[in-house]
Amino acid sequence: MKQENTSYDQLSTQCQKVKDSTGFLRVLSSEQKNLGLKEIAKQLLVSQDEILQANKIDLEQAHSKQLTESQLARLRLDQDRLRSMAHDVSTLADLPDPIGETIEEKILSNGLNVRRVRVPLGVVGVIYESRPNVTVDIASLCLKSSNGVLMRGGSEALNSNRALVRIIHKAVESCGITKQFLQFIDSTERNIIKEIINMDSYLDLIIPRGGSDLIHFVKEHSSIPAITGGIGVCHTYIDKDADVDKAVAIAHNAKISNPSVCNALDTLLIHTDVSDVILPKIAQSLVEAGVELRCDPKSLAILCSQNLLCKPAQDSDWGNEFLSLIASIRVVDSLEEALWHISHYGSGHSEAIVTENQNSKQQFLNEVDAAAVFANTSTRFTDGSALGLGSEVAISTSKLHARGPMGMRELTSYKWIIQGDGQIRT
Amino acid sequence: MKQENTSYDQLSTQCQKVKDSTGFLRVLSSEQKNLGLKEIAKQLLVSQDEILQANKIDLEQAHSKQLTESQLARLRLDQDRLRSMAHDVSTLADLPDPIGETIEEKILSNGLNVRRVRVPLGVVGVIYESRPNVTVDIASLCLKSSNGVLMRGGSEALNSNRALVRIIHKAVESCGITKQFLQFIDSTERNIIKEIINMDSYLDLIIPRGGSDLIHFVKEHSSIPAITGGIGVCHTYIDKDADVDKAVAIAHNAKISNPSVCNALDTLLIHTDVSDVILPKIAQSLVEAGVELRCDPKSLAILCSQNLLCKPAQDSDWGNEFLSLIASIRVVDSLEEALWHISHYGSGHSEAIVTENQNSKQQFLNEVDAAAVFANTSTRFTDGSALGLGSEVAISTSKLHARGPMGMRELTSYKWIIQGDGQIRT
Repeated sequence: MKQENTSYDQLSTQCQKVKDSTGFLRVLSSEQKNLGLKEIAKQLLVSQDEILQANKIDLEQAHSKQLTESQLARLRLDQDRLRSMAHDVSTLADLPDPIGETIEEKILSNGLNVRRVRVPLGVVGVIYESRPNVTVDIASLCLKSSNGVLMRGGSEALNSNRALVRIIHKAVESCGITKQFLQFIDSTERNIIKEIINMDSYLDLIIPRGGSDLIHFVKEHSSIPAITGGIGVCHTYIDKDADVDKAVAIAHNAKISNPSVCNALDTLLIHTDVSDVILPKIAQSLVEAGVELRCDPKSLAILCSQNLLCKPAQDSDWGNEFLSLIASIRVVDSLEEALWHISHYGSGHSEAIVTENQNSKQQFLNEVDAAAVFANTSTRFTDGSALGLGSEVAISTSKLHARGPMGMRELTSYKWIIQGDGQIRT
Repeated sequence: MKQENTSYDQLSTQCQKVKDSTGFLRVLSSEQKNLGLKEIAKQLLVSQDEILQANKIDLEQAHSKQLTESQLARLRLDQDRLRSMAHDVSTLADLPDPIGETIEEKILSNGLNVRRVRVPLGVVGVIYESRPNVTVDIASLCLKSSNGVLMRGGSEALNSNRALVRIIHKAVESCGITKQFLQFIDSTERNIIKEIINMDSYLDLIIPRGGSDLIHFVKEHSSIPAITGGIGVCHTYIDKDADVDKAVAIAHNAKISNPSVCNALDTLLIHTDVSDVILPKIAQSLVEAGVELRCDPKSLAILCSQNLLCKPAQDSDWGNEFLSLIASIRVVDSLEEALWHISHYGSGHSEAIVTENQNSKQQFLNEVDAAAVFANTSTRFTDGSALGLGSEVAISTSKLHARGPMGMRELTSYKWIIQGDGQIRT
């Protein structure tokens, strides 16, 4: 792999190569795909020195660029992470093949046999950021779903990604699978993104995995259908009929277990009837974990009176994805007010209610329009692996095609297969 | 309904109204929706004088604009068509409600109950052309799937559409359903289309139903996800192991039964081993029906030698959607050559093989990448009603979200509903 800049010509060549591989992929057997996945898993372990060496270069460069500790953590690979990545790929090999699955079958009154059968999308383009494990997740999900993939990873992970792609290429080739199926854009040029998202004669889907700047850029400039997501303004609403202990544990988990991800709590809503009792407990557990609380006047009054550390919320604290140890808090007079707040400020990602009241629970689950709605549990469960999909390629907040965690099934389309014996339409 | 030009302000108002109705629609019961549909069906018959009167005005204006006979036929309503439209709406009422359907349910090892439940998309925008029955099809499919809809029909059907919308509004209101769910753009301004397809804060999906100009315009300028289709360059391949009678009947049906629609035959491919025997029979049946045959050199030689009317094909006759009594013909040396031709010139709509050979059939069905692939039957069956979906809102040649005929299920999304008893993510 050369270190020269990827020009438009080179991108076109890569697009053509990956598109050329789709005919091969479409008829690739499950056995061969699984063999390829097992070999990738094996090579991730066998070649760990090569990978960790490349990762070390990225980490050194990242240090000199003064990346934050959380950015470094996302970039860092070690033996444990490689083992976990290999395990995920191996697990994927053991899951049923989505391709060729008959989704629906019927015999019409004229005798025609009509089936809808799952097929690959074709070529998927993915633009992502620092974490090198995403390279392996996406390559293996695309292989399992018989899709070609064009990927462009973050510049800070370039050496790690190069090593991983080299190893994936070697592994699949040794199993008779063309390495053309995976095209890695070996370039850190920022303007290559605009070129990728206009390769509509080659790519069937584009998935931008990154911050809101990237997502808005893709929405505005892409001529390829895009599935966007990953921006989660997540609310947890503590109802008047909430169980106190569950409320405290769930709010704490939603905010603290990984504050830098999209399914973490941003805003706590709490019913006025229980705010005096439950809010101080939740606030204390959050403050002890280092969370900065930004409060509406009612919650501010309650927490100040108990000498809990907090400050007034600004308008910009509602509907904001904090991605850090900050939460905004609002006291509401009713479930309806909570629903209004969520509908007004939410991003359609993950929303939760804590209540023992069946009616309130049902109303919340029915009326909230989001990819994932939760009752009496943490929004942190919006995750492909946590929900049993194996790896995930992204979390969609789009409503078309796929919503929420996207696994290999969400990288497929279907075709209608209609078989007859000479029937004609009258 | 006023006859003033629809300004941007008026469009925004209509968009806001339809979006405001989505909360109501989301929780609307199946019973009430079906009641509304039955009432629409009833009112189409009760108010037939009003509708036919309005349609007469459109037809008179169309005559003076010198529309073609096939355009007039698409525009024309009569008692029979109204009865058939009412029947379709009534049938839709009898089909199961897609909304609320549990697509998948599982209990995770931590006890979480995880369901994927079908929900409405929200608001669907449809831009369509002359046929006024489309107004009723789309309104009823959207009501059944609990979606709001913004529609913009063809200017030549404006009076018919106004009458139909008035009747639908009256019918649903009498059943306690807000008429806001259906917003009709009462304007013939061409530039309103560009405004509609950028109303991304109101519309969840845009469906352009029309010619390739409209579709390309929407692809290029829409900020709303679009599902496009309706352009069908359809091939029927007569294999060396084809049954002669089936081949003749199927090719004839695919070309003749309705030449002006997207699933009609454009190009006939025939294996060289049987071209001497079968091609003249097919050609004769097509020529007798008035079809102009545009032939590659080999088929030209065969047909000329039998004194059948035909002419040489130009390059532009491959990959062309004729929408009329024209077909191009090519003799191929193998199934592989036919597959290559289809992959190169097809539009991914409907493709057929006629063969008694199981291997050839299977290879064709597997390898052709199109919305619908057929063996031993006519491509004309790519149709929501013919395939048992009830009405159809469009035929998608997109691969994302929906492919082929789109019924009410294809106007839905899903959400994840996760219920626990205090579970947190570790």
